[in-house]
Amino acid sequence: MITSSSNAQIKNIIALQKKSKARNEQDVFVVEGIKIFSELPKDRIVSVFVSESFLEVPEQKALLEGVKFESVSDKVFKEISDTFTPQGILAVVKQYHYSFEDLLNNAKGAPMFMVLEELQDPGNLGTILRTGEGSGITGVIMSKGCVDIYNSKVIRSTMGTVFRVPFMYTEDLPETINKIKDTCTVYAAYLKGSRYAYDECDYTKGTAFVIGNEAKGLTEEIAGLADERIIIPMQGHVESLNAAVAASILMYEGYRQRRR
Amino acid sequence: MITSSSNAQIKNIIALQKKSKARNEQDVFVVEGIKIFSELPKDRIVSVFVSESFLEVPEQKALLEGVKFESVSDKVFKEISDTFTPQGILAVVKQYHYSFEDLLNNAKGAPMFMVLEELQDPGNLGTILRTGEGSGITGVIMSKGCVDIYNSKVIRSTMGTVFRVPFMYTEDLPETINKIKDTCTVYAAYLKGSRYAYDECDYTKGTAFVIGNEAKGLTEEIAGLADERIIIPMQGHVESLNAAVAASILMYEGYRQRRR
Repeated sequence: MITSSSNAQIKNIIALQKKSKARNEQDVFVVEGIKIFSELPKDRIVSVFVSESFLEVPEQKALLEGVKFESVSDKVFKEISDTFTPQGILAVVKQYHYSFEDLLNNAKGAPMFMVLEELQDPGNLGTILRTGEGSGITGVIMSKGCVDIYNSKVIRSTMGTVFRVPFMYTEDLPETINKIKDTCTVYAAYLKGSRYAYDECDYTKGTAFVIGNEAKGLTEEIAGLADERIIIPMQGHVESLNAAVAASILMYEGYRQRRR
Repeated sequence: MITSSSNAQIKNIIALQKKSKARNEQDVFVVEGIKIFSELPKDRIVSVFVSESFLEVPEQKALLEGVKFESVSDKVFKEISDTFTPQGILAVVKQYHYSFEDLLNNAKGAPMFMVLEELQDPGNLGTILRTGEGSGITGVIMSKGCVDIYNSKVIRSTMGTVFRVPFMYTEDLPETINKIKDTCTVYAAYLKGSRYAYDECDYTKGTAFVIGNEAKGLTEEIAGLADERIIIPMQGHVESLNAAVAASILMYEGYRQRRR
């Protein structure tokens, strides 16, 4: 059992929790908690760490059948955990590397992409993945400047969907949008110059929604590349919706039309 | 200028930021930031505090025209602020006291209520108010056990809609739901025993949506009181949507139908 926080493995996990650079260099990320561990595809596990008291509960120990793990003292586990009340289980997991073609191949029927430009809030990104799986999207495409999907707050709010929804970062969002246009109509959530409310378009064919930064929305450049600009109508004095809410309303309108 | 954090007013603001008991005893809450201050109805202001450097920017000072305020040193402002990068303006504001009748009177046409049982996450409640105003809801009704709406994280995520969307807490949610039934059909988001997907019902008449706790969903008691139980269909292995997302999808489906 590891009882010292100066242990090299322990130090490394702390680095992985905090630094995207460390995660990318080692090509891994960290997931924490019983539920997400139970959803984790076992072939992606690099290493597993559990606390002393975690192992004392027989049903919890059963989760580890056939899995190699290290046990650590409760005190040390508190240090490697990113949560206030650690559940006592944490795994280091291989990062995903989907290509645009992988995403396309994931489409059952007409693709439905969610494209994000400079999205910053970890909770928003995680929530978009979660709603994304529920609404059956084909994949999430992010500009390079979006928040790191392997940030622990993103992972937590995906509720396990990070293992199932394909995603990719692109260095060149305009170029990727042009590629998407080969199979999809691209709809930008953008007030200026919009001709349609979001529920007036047909999303049963190939569809990509583009959502921008929380504070600034989409850049004119990206909005200009879209085939259509759409708005989500709003009453009262609301200037905009939360980015994850806006994305969710669009994806579920897509899914609603596709279920008819 | 106040330069000491042992000043009685300063101590009181710190208490108001942290403790719902202090807020309720004084019947006030705290709002922070330039944008929310500019949306604040001036007749609800109890007191305003601004930092030294806030006053140095002429356009910011202009916001204070006709408003009585106290200036405080930047150091002291950091202590009364609840944010990492304080904008330098904070107001103590009178709490709202809406009755059920006030909420009903807010309806333009058929009412549309959002009812929340034991909702716990501040960000979710704030986001529901924000989307709520956008979708034109009549008001938000919360069970006593919901998170305190005057919590600073809730206020921040409402983006000013807390001043415009009527809301109330009820000690007796079953009794309130029975009252709502006089004017509305009550739809509970509840998997068990649901006959309809959320988009198969008619929300153009009086409508109330009921959403439950983030982890546990609705209690059977409350779900049992509803006229209909509805589900939001989900693909993949998603067990549930984020509570604010689910509420938003329902409210925007209501608004979508009402715009036809």
